[in-house]
Amino acid sequence: MPLLGLLPRRAWASLLSQLLRPPCASCTGAVRCQSQVAEAVLTSQLKAHQEKPNFIIKTPKGTRDLSPQHMVVREKILDLVISCFKRHGAKGMDTPAFELKETLTEKYGEDSGLMYDLKDQGGELLSLRYDLTVPFARYLAMNKVKKMKRYHVGKVWRRESPTIVQGRYREFCQCDFDIAGQFDPMIPDAECLKIMCEILSGLQLGDFLIKVNDRRIVDGMFAVCGVPESKFRAICSSIDKLDKMAWKDVRHEMVVKKGLAPEVADRIGDYVQCHGGVSLVEQMFQDPRLSQNKQALEGLGDLKLLFEYLTLFGIADKISFDLSLARGLDYYTGVIYEAMLLQTPTQAGEEPLNVGSVAAGGRYDGLVGMFDPKGHKVPCVGLSIGVERIFYIVEQRMKTKGEKVRTTETQVFVATPQKNFLQERLKLIAELWDSGIKAEMLYKNNPKLLTQLHYCESTGIPLVVIIGEQELKEGVIKIRSVASREEVSGGGRNRRDEVFLPFPDSVRNMHLLAEKLSSWLIVVEMNKHPFQMTIAACEY
Amino acid sequence: MPLLGLLPRRAWASLLSQLLRPPCASCTGAVRCQSQVAEAVLTSQLKAHQEKPNFIIKTPKGTRDLSPQHMVVREKILDLVISCFKRHGAKGMDTPAFELKETLTEKYGEDSGLMYDLKDQGGELLSLRYDLTVPFARYLAMNKVKKMKRYHVGKVWRRESPTIVQGRYREFCQCDFDIAGQFDPMIPDAECLKIMCEILSGLQLGDFLIKVNDRRIVDGMFAVCGVPESKFRAICSSIDKLDKMAWKDVRHEMVVKKGLAPEVADRIGDYVQCHGGVSLVEQMFQDPRLSQNKQALEGLGDLKLLFEYLTLFGIADKISFDLSLARGLDYYTGVIYEAMLLQTPTQAGEEPLNVGSVAAGGRYDGLVGMFDPKGHKVPCVGLSIGVERIFYIVEQRMKTKGEKVRTTETQVFVATPQKNFLQERLKLIAELWDSGIKAEMLYKNNPKLLTQLHYCESTGIPLVVIIGEQELKEGVIKIRSVASREEVSGGGRNRRDEVFLPFPDSVRNMHLLAEKLSSWLIVVEMNKHPFQMTIAACEY
Repeated sequence: MPLLGLLPRRAWASLLSQLLRPPCASCTGAVRCQSQVAEAVLTSQLKAHQEKPNFIIKTPKGTRDLSPQHMVVREKILDLVISCFKRHGAKGMDTPAFELKETLTEKYGEDSGLMYDLKDQGGELLSLRYDLTVPFARYLAMNKVKKMKRYHVGKVWRRESPTIVQGRYREFCQCDFDIAGQFDPMIPDAECLKIMCEILSGLQLGDFLIKVNDRRIVDGMFAVCGVPESKFRAICSSIDKLDKMAWKDVRHEMVVKKGLAPEVADRIGDYVQCHGGVSLVEQMFQDPRLSQNKQALEGLGDLKLLFEYLTLFGIADKISFDLSLARGLDYYTGVIYEAMLLQTPTQAGEEPLNVGSVAAGGRYDGLVGMFDPKGHKVPCVGLSIGVERIFYIVEQRMKTKGEKVRTTETQVFVATPQKNFLQERLKLIAELWDSGIKAEMLYKNNPKLLTQLHYCESTGIPLVVIIGEQELKEGVIKIRSVASREEVSGGGRNRRDEVFLPFPDSVRNMHLLAEKLSSWLIVVEMNKHPFQMTIAACEY
Repeated sequence: MPLLGLLPRRAWASLLSQLLRPPCASCTGAVRCQSQVAEAVLTSQLKAHQEKPNFIIKTPKGTRDLSPQHMVVREKILDLVISCFKRHGAKGMDTPAFELKETLTEKYGEDSGLMYDLKDQGGELLSLRYDLTVPFARYLAMNKVKKMKRYHVGKVWRRESPTIVQGRYREFCQCDFDIAGQFDPMIPDAECLKIMCEILSGLQLGDFLIKVNDRRIVDGMFAVCGVPESKFRAICSSIDKLDKMAWKDVRHEMVVKKGLAPEVADRIGDYVQCHGGVSLVEQMFQDPRLSQNKQALEGLGDLKLLFEYLTLFGIADKISFDLSLARGLDYYTGVIYEAMLLQTPTQAGEEPLNVGSVAAGGRYDGLVGMFDPKGHKVPCVGLSIGVERIFYIVEQRMKTKGEKVRTTETQVFVATPQKNFLQERLKLIAELWDSGIKAEMLYKNNPKLLTQLHYCESTGIPLVVIIGEQELKEGVIKIRSVASREEVSGGGRNRRDEVFLPFPDSVRNMHLLAEKLSSWLIVVEMNKHPFQMTIAACEY
């Protein structure tokens, strides 16, 4: 029997970089329907469109389709995020896309107006979920769960004015990890920061920094600066804008829009410029005003312990105690944090990226109690990865570098150089599928060989199984590697790297062949240089 | 250096069957809020709840949370379905959860009233997607895509009266595979049926049958029986209920509700009792009435070709030509199919399962053209897997058999028998995480050893790394397999199966240790009897 041929390594290395198709124009490609539909199949249905001459084919404002190219990038990033969550022992969970409107009201502070409500069609008043945290708290209270470490990946919806160019949409994906339960202080909180570091390092987005603060320090700061307690949350929401707005604009908002006394705003201004490591925590313990506030002292004590654990985790250098961090959402009660990328990679031809924070979270000890009939609290701490922004950064980077992705995983293409070979192709491809091999063929009775090979090249399929009259007569099939364009221009050696395998006529033997093919192809997946591996492993 | 110890095989086999927790009461666990919240952290927020004394903590009607137990089953089934779609060369895709209301209107026939509309909050009128097929057609038309093989897994929403006991919800997951493009007849159609067979065989749900018909045969049958053309879709929708309703009830609906002449209904009655293989196709070619109808003859011709390809794929015995199959949705234009489970496994203590069809689909050549301004058609054929019903069947079966699932994947637990070992535990667990090992520990400063071991037993963690004063002094760590309850009662031999590895003090050496651990744990995953494997592979 003929031995398996040897292919040059370059042929396989090149398989890793496949053709990238330009992203589709989903978001902007609005087309006006002129209702000139000529051949109406379903007359009654078409009538509806003819009656609406201005019907526009588009996705709703602030939303978009995800093309196969988007999906490949997403799948890769989500796999990394989820595997990190699982590494830390988290369980998966899901909640409905909408909740009772009452479940969501009064949880998000000033942002509540951005909620999508469902139409009252008789029955309950419903709203699309605004984040994954409130549904998690509702789940814990409803099921009386006192302890849980869970992750949740899902879509959420917010009626924001979309700035699509910076990767903000009205529908977007969130990846949350939370630890619920009464534990010794700062151990789960430190793990959340460790997870953020692992994910941001793993994604190789460049250097990053995680700002840390404590809601009690924020409130203590407000108190000692002279902010009236009724204005705490509103001022908190202003401070939260410091990463997007200059201090003078935030000050203006606080004084003019929110009625804060100018001297109070200036006192806050002195604090929010402070950031540093554990030494700043020590310094604030000595601060003449802040050290008089019980709440602030509790927060500082916890931060000191947190830094101790972060040092043991080897990530203290990634964390900065930053008094300007406030986090707008109402439900935080303790430690809060937000991760920022330090370098915005602006290379030639690349627009400067302004992506804001890529991960954030904090402690919310009161939220579950708000759902419990007796107010029983379940302390929680968690984080949310801003995957949409990460998708955007990675996609921009690939675009700049001209990186290509395959959108399918097909391993083998079934081809024929002859006419009237559809039956043989169908039999062969069914065997491949039944053996778990990813296979495709053209849906044509008599396709041209060139068309078939071109399909493999343009979609990045690495192998072709060829069956024709000669092969059928000799009882063999031909297996050929699809050379990359570079390979062909490099000398065209692949033309002779054809592999012959026995082609039995009985279905049982066909299956054996497919099994051999299968084990061979598994090698393809496990090793960049499959042919060397295969020769050692197979002797048919 | 001490060698790796040997563990009995049974210890590892037992790891495969883990504790199953009873499913949560999410769907029914409505709790009345008595607004007796005592300790209010965020007073302003709590006020809202106090003002609504009758606020009920629940998920919206017809929806439910998916607990970690549900998620594990789902992930397994979806993995199998998606890997089949990828095996056939499909690309992934996603569309927004809602569409412009106009996009969805007039596509679903009688069911349109079940759509969820969003509230008009100023802007576009939106509805939640009702299936994944219409958004796919909209995507193709909007982006002028003429050829595409894609899969789409996502939630859809229908305001049906939920029969929750049979696994029907108002929010549910669909798994769709579709082939768009102009190809030679019946080749993509046959592949769709092959995919349905591969998935249903792969899921091991018992024997199944796929009913096949053609919309043109249905319409031809209506025509030759004397149904007025204006009533075609309405009568189609009645016929579609034949798998749930007896013929006499369907006949009653057609005659009384839809105004069909009784003798016309009876003529239809004769046809819809026919089902069989390719021989029935031949028989219908000879049918004196049906053979006079051009449309019906086209449909029969295609079915004959389809059966030829199904024979080559080796699945013809799973397919039945069934004249009672009509498929209610308006958009089908050619071949239609629906897969039914043949055996409803009713064992002792198990409620009889009435799950209806578990997969369905067909050809819809006119739908894309409805979105195209010039009416350009893109022929499509596809299928949808009824995964919710499949989840339900698998969950019921596991419940009956008492099968247990782990909801986490944690490989190693970090424990200590001593007080004041938190720092060492944190250092050790960070090393494990950084080496990609799934690890957990208790968030307590000084947990009891028994509590720690009990946690491993109840969550199914197979290995414990133990560090205490003795280990620290000797420069070793202890690795212990967590014996299953059966193992302990069988003689407790595991007590001595402790493994000692060097415990270096420098971080660099710690990392080396973790790497060794890592390679060792990879063996745990690949082989049911890791210790035998390990001894051969490691010599430290």
